[in-house]
Amino acid sequence: MVLGIDIGGTGVKLGIVDEQYHVRNIVSIPTHADRHADDILSDILAAAKPLCDAYHPTAVGIGSAGRIDPVNGVVLRAGHLPFRNEPLCCKIGGALGLPAFLDNDANCAMLAETVAGACTDCRDALMVTIGTGIGGAIVIDGKIYRAHNFRAGELGHFILDHRGKPCPCGLHGCYEQYASATALITLAKEAVAAAPDSFLAQMSGADLNGKTVFDAAAQNCPTAKAVLSTYGEYVAMGLNSFVKIFMPECIVLAGGIAKAGDALLDILTPHLLPEAVIRLSSLGGNAGIIGAAALCYQ
Amino acid sequence: MVLGIDIGGTGVKLGIVDEQYHVRNIVSIPTHADRHADDILSDILAAAKPLCDAYHPTAVGIGSAGRIDPVNGVVLRAGHLPFRNEPLCCKIGGALGLPAFLDNDANCAMLAETVAGACTDCRDALMVTIGTGIGGAIVIDGKIYRAHNFRAGELGHFILDHRGKPCPCGLHGCYEQYASATALITLAKEAVAAAPDSFLAQMSGADLNGKTVFDAAAQNCPTAKAVLSTYGEYVAMGLNSFVKIFMPECIVLAGGIAKAGDALLDILTPHLLPEAVIRLSSLGGNAGIIGAAALCYQ
Repeated sequence: MVLGIDIGGTGVKLGIVDEQYHVRNIVSIPTHADRHADDILSDILAAAKPLCDAYHPTAVGIGSAGRIDPVNGVVLRAGHLPFRNEPLCCKIGGALGLPAFLDNDANCAMLAETVAGACTDCRDALMVTIGTGIGGAIVIDGKIYRAHNFRAGELGHFILDHRGKPCPCGLHGCYEQYASATALITLAKEAVAAAPDSFLAQMSGADLNGKTVFDAAAQNCPTAKAVLSTYGEYVAMGLNSFVKIFMPECIVLAGGIAKAGDALLDILTPHLLPEAVIRLSSLGGNAGIIGAAALCYQ
Repeated sequence: MVLGIDIGGTGVKLGIVDEQYHVRNIVSIPTHADRHADDILSDILAAAKPLCDAYHPTAVGIGSAGRIDPVNGVVLRAGHLPFRNEPLCCKIGGALGLPAFLDNDANCAMLAETVAGACTDCRDALMVTIGTGIGGAIVIDGKIYRAHNFRAGELGHFILDHRGKPCPCGLHGCYEQYASATALITLAKEAVAAAPDSFLAQMSGADLNGKTVFDAAAQNCPTAKAVLSTYGEYVAMGLNSFVKIFMPECIVLAGGIAKAGDALLDILTPHLLPEAVIRLSSLGGNAGIIGAAALCYQ
């Protein structure tokens, strides 16, 4: 029995996870990320203590957004959290009297799918997380591949269009400019502007998100279907590239767009290489806790 | 002391390689690839026997072009060799009375650079071989990454331009359509057609190859320099993508185009990410033998 902690920009989830990766008890608290790191940690510890008293976990695994040094248990930097060279393992493990392990949220989610989710049967697999941007994680021979500086797996930033628009990462025409949820919303807004009488335009109003497009397509809106057809081709192009480079046993799709489920797979399938094996993440919101716990068991 | 054999479409090289990866003796024979596989093997064995008698190697490592099953020691398929499900390890190892190991030529070349060449200091590295096409090999945590079906590392076939022209691999706008020697020659031919009075046009005549372009640029031909500037940007874009995905400690460039040496690095540097570490292969024509030998020592 171990304690898994999943620290995100909005909320922190804590859960007791057994050796079969069943989650016994989950506590959620808000992050309030605009505070000092120590205040956030203080709340996390207050939530962790009763779980530790009740279940006596033997270790704590922590997943955090941001760039991580898993060897030293330090969050080097995090976009949406006030962590700068923050020694989370030392602070949380020390306060709880437990050995502590840390990795970033993308790697934890991938690890979770590997031990208890969509790709337990795979030694080599990728996760592509499609949300505001595109994140990724790589499993090679059953282990997370992190690279010497722990910065591997920026799967949203290979170049899909060398003549494309600049990406904040410094390159031009990166995959995430075409295949993220943000990119889907941009495509949909353009389509709505061109077809203001479409069902998609009527449905979306001021609030156009990825789900709106899938919902409108499910209602047979031709505008939404055309948007998804283009978007699906973009997403599939990147997945095909990953297949050529890694030839993984499977690619697991996660993130907000993956919630579209079979409707997402349907728009990808016509454009995928025959050797591409694409699956949806199966652990949903608990992947972070389970992956954090898996750090302890590995 | 082991025997390394490097089987290519044109020639076969055999060499005795010691544990420090020094090559003691090299024998080269023509492949005559238009014959039956057994005739080729018979010539290889005839060349190997005297080396074995003189040096008593303890194992034989074999590198072959084509798609390989290294576990069973079988060449599954090879474009330029008459090997179809050819059990090379069984046949060569059996005839020589030695344990035998097999991998493809790209992986052997990468392995050689890892144990005795340009990246002996790296645990995670890539090789990008720039020739008629673009080949690749991936080292993760000091080991060749092959994938479950031994088909990983098609680094020439991620999509660089989603609107690009069809590639024989089935995708559109693959990296090798922009960054191979073939692509460089196409660019140069277009430039020569547009500038028939250029030094490049005068130099090349009917026989325009990659070296011609680098030679003309070295003579300050503006046409050749413009071609290389465009080409360098294409090559660098792919290397940047690999950096984002793998964050390797280094990328080793090999193949015909890498023979341009520093002139190649010079055209890449302006377009590379700061974290990209690019080196030239350092073993040249012996990489195949050394890598084949390294299969035995690993």
